[in-house]
This record gives sequence, structure tokens and C-alpha cells, in this order.
Amino acid sequence: MTASLPLPPVLLEGLRQLLGERLSTSPAVCEHHGRDESIFAPMPPAAVAFARHTDEVLAIVNLCREHRVPLVPYGAGSSLEGHTLATRGGVTLNLQQMDQLVAVHDEDQTATVQPGVTRKALNAALRDKGLFFPIDPGADATIGGMCATRASGTNAVRYGTMRENVVNLTVITPDGQLVKTARRARKSAAGYDLTRLFVGSEGTLGVVVEATVKLHPLPESILAAVCAFPSIDAAVQAVVQTIQVGVPIARCEFVDRVAIRALNGYSKTGLPEQPHLFFEFHGSEAGVREQVELVQAIAGELGGESFQWAHTPEERTRLWEARHNVYFAALQLRPGSRSVVTDVCVPISQLADCVNQTAQDLAQSGLIAPIVGHVGDGNFHVQMLVDGDSEHEVAQAEALNARLVARALAMDGTCTGEHGIGLHKQGFLLDELGEAPVALMRQIKHAMDPHNLMNPGKIFAF
Amino acid sequence: MTASLPLPPVLLEGLRQLLGERLSTSPAVCEHHGRDESIFAPMPPAAVAFARHTDEVLAIVNLCREHRVPLVPYGAGSSLEGHTLATRGGVTLNLQQMDQLVAVHDEDQTATVQPGVTRKALNAALRDKGLFFPIDPGADATIGGMCATRASGTNAVRYGTMRENVVNLTVITPDGQLVKTARRARKSAAGYDLTRLFVGSEGTLGVVVEATVKLHPLPESILAAVCAFPSIDAAVQAVVQTIQVGVPIARCEFVDRVAIRALNGYSKTGLPEQPHLFFEFHGSEAGVREQVELVQAIAGELGGESFQWAHTPEERTRLWEARHNVYFAALQLRPGSRSVVTDVCVPISQLADCVNQTAQDLAQSGLIAPIVGHVGDGNFHVQMLVDGDSEHEVAQAEALNARLVARALAMDGTCTGEHGIGLHKQGFLLDELGEAPVALMRQIKHAMDPHNLMNPGKIFAF
Repeated sequence: MTASLPLPPVLLEGLRQLLGERLSTSPAVCEHHGRDESIFAPMPPAAVAFARHTDEVLAIVNLCREHRVPLVPYGAGSSLEGHTLATRGGVTLNLQQMDQLVAVHDEDQTATVQPGVTRKALNAALRDKGLFFPIDPGADATIGGMCATRASGTNAVRYGTMRENVVNLTVITPDGQLVKTARRARKSAAGYDLTRLFVGSEGTLGVVVEATVKLHPLPESILAAVCAFPSIDAAVQAVVQTIQVGVPIARCEFVDRVAIRALNGYSKTGLPEQPHLFFEFHGSEAGVREQVELVQAIAGELGGESFQWAHTPEERTRLWEARHNVYFAALQLRPGSRSVVTDVCVPISQLADCVNQTAQDLAQSGLIAPIVGHVGDGNFHVQMLVDGDSEHEVAQAEALNARLVARALAMDGTCTGEHGIGLHKQGFLLDELGEAPVALMRQIKHAMDPHNLMNPGKIFAF
Repeated sequence: MTASLPLPPVLLEGLRQLLGERLSTSPAVCEHHGRDESIFAPMPPAAVAFARHTDEVLAIVNLCREHRVPLVPYGAGSSLEGHTLATRGGVTLNLQQMDQLVAVHDEDQTATVQPGVTRKALNAALRDKGLFFPIDPGADATIGGMCATRASGTNAVRYGTMRENVVNLTVITPDGQLVKTARRARKSAAGYDLTRLFVGSEGTLGVVVEATVKLHPLPESILAAVCAFPSIDAAVQAVVQTIQVGVPIARCEFVDRVAIRALNGYSKTGLPEQPHLFFEFHGSEAGVREQVELVQAIAGELGGESFQWAHTPEERTRLWEARHNVYFAALQLRPGSRSVVTDVCVPISQLADCVNQTAQDLAQSGLIAPIVGHVGDGNFHVQMLVDGDSEHEVAQAEALNARLVARALAMDGTCTGEHGIGLHKQGFLLDELGEAPVALMRQIKHAMDPHNLMNPGKIFAF
């Protein structure tokens, strides 16, 4: 870790006047904000500003711009591709203290929140309303961060991603404008879709200070089950057929043999060491019964074993917590290791080929590398456990990732289903889209942030 | 109508060499392309170019840019807010001959089409595949035009709008770049959401030359019915409750007493002259039965009469054709009249108030003005029939529209649910979002089209 360039004293003074104790230049705080779960060496900012109000965010954006100092918006710090690293030092803007639920409109099934509200906190606040917010990346990310990365998770196959679930955003743009992107109607044709421009822009176009998201009615009936399959191929084929016949399945997760071993160790799940699908069904009682019957028939024909049901809400919670813990569970398979995580997403017709070829490639590598995925979307992850100090292993993992991305692109898929580009996938973005679309993104970035101060160096080098 | 400024001879020559007979400067052709269903006087281009290939589109965009001549992309010409009028003359680019179905990927439930394919042609081509494309604006619009206006229609309550149903676009940008916005995966976090940037940009950011859209499995069971209600309020309350309890209704259309009268005259529907809801239910047989029971119970409690079922596919087609014909049917209520059509969309909790207050306002005006709407989305239309030669009536209709928009905005709604801004709603867009968001849209437009040549004067004056 190299220390960040010091900030201009007049900027530091301005930030101190604004924030008092909520401006930190402590090396520990700066280093904490300059590292993430990615493989990159830490890149700390020179200072961390903890904002509590939109007015403060506006003042911080203006101060940084006036002094031409980079600013990195920061939520829970749970992104995986280096999104929050302070590539050029400057100020990191921590938004976790902007954690107020602004409004819940039960009748319209929307919630308006400050950016630091986490997905779990939002759902806890909704507990008595008969509504829930479905997007669930593994970590307890903030809503602001989830907007920034276009987050997704296990429910996306039924409920969509942040792309479909953000109604409007209020953003402070790099030039210090407060932009509210839309009203609260379900749909609108009023000009450019600024909401979707900011969703997935990874903090490079502004700071989200408020978001209105869609909520969904808690289903009358919820059933969850796991099912073991004789092979990766059988499990993935079951998913493909489930999607193709149009079952409105709520969750449909693939967990391979290695990941099951990790879960059994970490979460005491006691599952047979075989490839599994984890299912959840939402609907009326009769509707869920119908879905279950269809999926059981598909699974049975492919050699799937009997469904193991999570009967109570507690068992269901345990099941999905186990699924969400795969990442940390897998790290225990090789203590002291770091993860290189992949994130391709392919058209569903290509999924079985893509997973099978990837499993073969991994088997030849000798790396411990569980495969899990939101396979109903065509999205899956490989978590390659490497010795972070071994250049050879890191290079080996990167080469596997590059081959996986090339395989997915050849199948008309994407290099990232949900994690984003960050620092790590800028080359893959060019492979995926070509020069002209990325040039257009840079054109938009340049128009909105001519001095390249807002989370610089992410998605593309300037 | 004033004739458009002539094109520079060297441009005309270049276009003629490129297109031969497919370049027209005939006054009839130019005038046809310079008028639409809006209240504006015709604004014809100086020439109309009929392209058949992407290469031709690219050449036309480049020629027009080199000569600083405006270019207006044109599909079926069915937009309602003046989108295709050639405000500054120039060339209109008719894309109707680019009408090839490029690929259908049944297993992935996507279709890739050229921009001139109409929604009905696409669905006709899908007839044997067990799949359909749900977005259905009243007119048989082209897919390219529907991308441009972020179109919607009667199925959006269940299947979403063009915002949710476009997978990727290939666009020729104003600077002559071919930009393919995304691959064919269901989701992606790969950089800015260029797809959504173009969806709804009304031809101001480029010309769509290919689109991949989502298809949906034809439901196992489809039932359609109409239900008469004693009052507007009762009908709208039935919709609000249906949405709030989470019935996954496929279509839920409000048709007021005046519109019923128009339909009875035009489509021989023979319905009682009362406010109606037109419903369609999609699902498994049991699932549809469940939905129907819930909605019948809700309707019954609000004084709704017995459901009149469309039993056969033919009856169902007749029902929805009647619904789609309201626009033309209504014009017959006052032969020779023109329509001023409104298009607000409000949060569902505000819908009953918004419709009721609007009905009162209309009643006081004395204008014939049916109300219909995609009320499951909170979206409804008033079609005010005016004598186009009467300044008083036109002003009266515009004043009613302005009051309606103000009412919707006060309820956190939008001035346009699906028709777009075009020429007509530029002031309302500012009322809705304020200066900063519209300035941001202009910033993007200026970055991508610095000479303001691509459908100039739409969404905002430059």
C-alpha cells in the first residue's frame, strides 16, 4: 500500500469545517476504505468524509471539484471488482450514516430511502407491511451501492434486478446539480431514462442521495427445497427446462459439489456432496403446488433426488443464509486464501455448455474453485481460491477467468451479470461491446464529469 | 404547411446515388411524412429516404451530418406528440422497408428484428413458436418506433413496457458509429445501460437499425371478460384493489361511458353505456381460475355487474381490437374533429382521485372526451375531440390537458406514461422534472449530437 497524495490544505480545512469529527484522515480508516474483496492491492484515499445530509454531499462534491480532487462514493464496501478503491487518492465519501427510511408507500408498493440503508435494514423495516424488497446480493449491501452496481441476486429470476426495481433516484452530479430522475409513477415516457443511466454507473456519474425502489407483496405461500443431482449437467438442464416452460420460479440456485462441501463445513448443512439446486416457490397455495409439481417432474426425469423441504420460516432462512454464506464458507476450504470471483451470464440455451466446459477447465487447473449461480438468469460464479502471494496462482486464476469470459462472449453472453466492471473487467468490457459503445460511455462521462473526478478510473480509464 | 428549405444539391445527389428511386422529394410523400395524429400543422421534410440496409442508414447519417442537414428517423408514423415532424426540414429516414426478422431464439425467448418490423408482423411470425411479444400500443407501430418512444400498451401491467422488454439495440449514432448496446444475456452489469439510454430517446440520439426484444411463453390458459360498473369511481377502485392484492393480471383496461358509446357505434360491441373494465387473465388453468375469483369478488363488492366472457379466441381478438379501436371509434362521435390526447400516469394510490377529478373537469368543459386507460399501471388517456379550426376549442383542450398534467404531477405522477414528449410536452417535462434533469438530458444530447441534427427540436428545444 502506498499512501495517498495529501489533500490541498484549503480543501482539508473546508471539509473539516463542514464535517468536524466526521472527516477522518486516520491511516486505519483510509486503508479500510481503500481495500475490498478483490485481488487488488489497497488504494486508500487521503481522507474519508462521513456525510449525514444531502446538503453535506453537495458541499463535498463542490469542494472536491473546485480543488480538482477525486471523490469516491462508498456504501458498504462489499463490491468485488475494485469499485471503491481510490485509484488516484482523494476523498472517499462514506454514505453509511445516511441511513434513514424516508417513506414507505404501502399502497403503491414503493419505498424511498437514503443511500446508506442496507437491504436487510429495509426488509426489517417492512416486516409488518406485507411487502418486501427482493434484490439480495450476497453481502448486506447498501441500496445506494446496489444502485451503483446494478445489483441482482437470488430473486432476480422472478423479480428482476436493480434495473427493473428502481423507480427514481436523486443524484448529486459532478457539477453539483441535484438531479431527481423521475416521479413515482410505475412507468413514464418523459425524456431520457436518467434513472437507468445512473443505475450501474458505478459512482462515476454522481452520488446517489435518495432512491425510490419497488416493493413486492409477500407471497401467500412460500416453499423452499434443495435437490441433489447426479451431475452438473443434469442440474443445469433442470434449470434450463424450468425456465423454458415458463415456471415463475422465485429462486433457482446452482451449488456445485465443492460449494456443498464448503457449506457443510461452515453452515452444518449436512447435504450429500453432489451438485444441488436450491429452489424457492412463491405464489398462492395452489400456484405453488403447481410449480412444485412441474419442477419435481423435470428434476425427476434428470435423475434429481427427492426434494428436501425447508418447512418452517426458520429453516428457510437457514437455507438461504447458507447459500449467501457460500463465499465465506469457501474461503475456509483453504484458510488464508483470497478469492478471484467470476461472474459471467449467458443466454439460457447456452448455460449447460458454458457450465460444463468451465467445470472441465477448472478440473484441469487443480485450484479449489466452487461454482454457484443464479442459474435461472443464466448467471453463475466461480470462486477460485488462490494464495494471494503466489504470482503463479493469481495468474492461473486470471487466465481461467479470461477463458471463461471468452467462452461466455462466444455464446453471446456478458462478462458480468451483476458484479460490474470496476477496475477488474475493463478489458473484458471492450471485448464484450467493442470500441464504439465504450467510447460512447466515455463521451457521456466526459460530458458530465470533464475533470474526471467522480470515482475516476472505474469502468474505463479516462 | 410551408415547404421545407431545399437540400444542398450535392447532398441530394449523394442520396440519389445511394438510394435511386428510394429517395423521394415528391410533395405528397414529404407531406405525408410531415404530419401525424397530433394537433400540429404539418412540418414536411425536403426529402424522404427509404433505407433497406444498415449500410445505407450509416451512409445517410454521414451525408446529412457532413452537410449539417437534420435527419428524422421514421417508423410507422403513429406517434401522437409530434415526434416525427420535420421541425427544420431536412431528410426523413423511413425505415419501414427494413422489415426483416433477423433471428428468433425460441429457447432464450428473444427475437432480433430490423426496426421496420411491426408488432403485429412480429407476432404473426411467432404464431407457431408458443411465444408472443406483448407490447401493444394502439397502432401497429414498428419495433424501432416503439423503442424510440418507450412504448407500452394494454399488457404492460403484467409484462412491462419497452423499458423492460428490450435486450439490446444496434444504433447508428449521430457521429456515424455503429453501437451495439449489449449482448443477449438476460441481465448484465457491463457498464452504462446504453440500451435504456436509447429506449425512449425519441430518435434524438441515433437511428435504431436492429433490436433484440424479449418474448414470453403463450400462457396455457387465457380468459378475457368485460365488466360494467355503476360509476367511474367503482371501476377504478376495483383496479386499485386488484393491483394492491397482487393479482398478476395481464390486462386491466378502463373504458368510460363515452368510449363505450363510441365502441358500440364503431365496433358493434353492444355494451351498456356505463364505465367498464376490460380484463385479461393469463396463467395455468387453476391459476387463471384463482385470479378470476379474486377479481370477481373485488368487482362484486364495488357493484360491478356479472362478467361478460369472451369465450373463443375470435371473441377475444374482437374484444381487444375493439379496445384498440377506441381512438378511431371516438373520432366518429364528432365527424371531422381532431383529437387532443392526454397521457398521465400516477401512483396507483392516486388513480381514483385523478380520474374522478378529471372527469369532473371534463364534464364542465362540454367537450366530447372519452377516458380510457391502462389503469393497472396508473396510466389513462383523455381523448378530447375538437374542431381543429376553432382556436377556442383547441385552447380549451390544451387548458384541460395542462390542468390534468398539473393534477398528476401534484400526485407524484408523470405527464406521459407512454406517448413521450415529442414537440407537445416540452413544457410539461420541465414542470415534471425541473431544470437540472432536463439540462442533463441536453448535455447528453449535445455530447452525442453537437450539431443537433438527429430529430432536432424533440424532447427539448436545443
